[in-house]
Amino acid sequence: SGFVHVKNPHLDSMEEDILYHLDLGTKTHNLPAMFGDIKFVCVGGSPNRMRAFAQFMQRELGLAGAGEELPDISAGSDRYAMYRAGPVLSVSHGMGIPSISIMLHELIKLLHHAKCRDVTIIRIGTSGGLGIEAGSVVITDTAVDSSFQPRFEQVVLGDVVVRSTELDKDLAEELLACSREVADFPTLIGRTMCTYDFYEGQGRLDGALCSFSSEKKLEYLRRAYGAGVRNIEMESTAFAALCGLCGLKGEFCQFYLL
Amino acid sequence: SGFVHVKNPHLDSMEEDILYHLDLGTKTHNLPAMFGDIKFVCVGGSPNRMRAFAQFMQRELGLAGAGEELPDISAGSDRYAMYRAGPVLSVSHGMGIPSISIMLHELIKLLHHAKCRDVTIIRIGTSGGLGIEAGSVVITDTAVDSSFQPRFEQVVLGDVVVRSTELDKDLAEELLACSREVADFPTLIGRTMCTYDFYEGQGRLDGALCSFSSEKKLEYLRRAYGAGVRNIEMESTAFAALCGLCGLKGEFCQFYLL
Repeated sequence: SGFVHVKNPHLDSMEEDILYHLDLGTKTHNLPAMFGDIKFVCVGGSPNRMRAFAQFMQRELGLAGAGEELPDISAGSDRYAMYRAGPVLSVSHGMGIPSISIMLHELIKLLHHAKCRDVTIIRIGTSGGLGIEAGSVVITDTAVDSSFQPRFEQVVLGDVVVRSTELDKDLAEELLACSREVADFPTLIGRTMCTYDFYEGQGRLDGALCSFSSEKKLEYLRRAYGAGVRNIEMESTAFAALCGLCGLKGEFCQFYLL
Repeated sequence: SGFVHVKNPHLDSMEEDILYHLDLGTKTHNLPAMFGDIKFVCVGGSPNRMRAFAQFMQRELGLAGAGEELPDISAGSDRYAMYRAGPVLSVSHGMGIPSISIMLHELIKLLHHAKCRDVTIIRIGTSGGLGIEAGSVVITDTAVDSSFQPRFEQVVLGDVVVRSTELDKDLAEELLACSREVADFPTLIGRTMCTYDFYEGQGRLDGALCSFSSEKKLEYLRRAYGAGVRNIEMESTAFAALCGLCGLKGEFCQFYLL
């Protein structure tokens, strides 16, 4: 049917669904009217970048009002920022799995309540690269955890549930084909490693704590490279697991900023 | 000595330390002059609330400029917001362990570079309460994970390292004593459970995914209560572990908002 589906039998019996962190709700807003025609959702960590991206899309799509200030749809909450430009929704998610998870739960319910169809979601943002040129774009094939396994471990009421982290292969190929029209950015398809920590988790030597040597760090990163990892960031496994379960065609495109 | 200590031998040999997500650095800013007299750091999830808190402190302490707009010290980064009011620094940390960890690594290095002494750090914010009156304040005794264990599992180069999550007992008692002067808010000391997820992880029935019944949810929350848990949130274990390791006297005070 192409609809975004929620997998929660309790939602049907709720009188009102408040998407608290997005400052939206089924009783306070006409979600089908506001969002029913959304076809693309682009998400990224930083609110300023997601506003700039929405403004860019507005110019690219030749929409009325291009160049003007866009309103933040979620302005009443300072947890996330949300902008729209025609059929494109641009939403920030903060840093890390817990932060993107809250946003995605509420975004998926939003798209469901709004009766959106055939929605594609793409995470655009920056990441650390591994054995690739700075300035490269990595399109994620599969998201892996810090042991290089293609899985997302979700704790549900204290028990660990393991979820798949595969992303949409056709969409990845389509994005790679698009990238050939942009000469400036070398683009590749590879695995993306997702960690819960930026400093010790990603082998950085400049955190407040660091108990390992530069050699141990390189050894770990070499093993990651050997397992197919081409970039490292902090949200991909949860993104892949949630989008996959809810029928959202999802991809992860990361720019490796040196 | 009372100094905040970093545990990273690599830092000494670095020419410059850029606290990227705070938009500060050792070469670009005179950190001892800017922050050397800081004695209290209060942190919380929302940037707007941390600005309001700094303004409140400015009035309470009778500082010059009270009521005026305070500058965001980290304005050049949209990841966190930072304000100061006399000896009090007020910093936002976003949502979840990965987000607070990045901020704490850089904050601890900031206090170290600034040669701050005898710093107390308090997390102030909201949480879900468990078997307590709405409007209560919970002062955390020990932070526990979703299995009710007093531990924080930190992945370092792919290996799990287990860290202690005890907080400062004297500080907890001192805060409890202060609370007796404030009649409106029942205050108690209890365990705080920290989860990686807001919806499935905390037993909410209104996420995009929910595979459990209302009974199973209640059974889990009852077990948590039996283990001494009085509130649930998303940052306490990492906060306790990092502050403990770096000699920061830390406490967690959460307001249970219904």
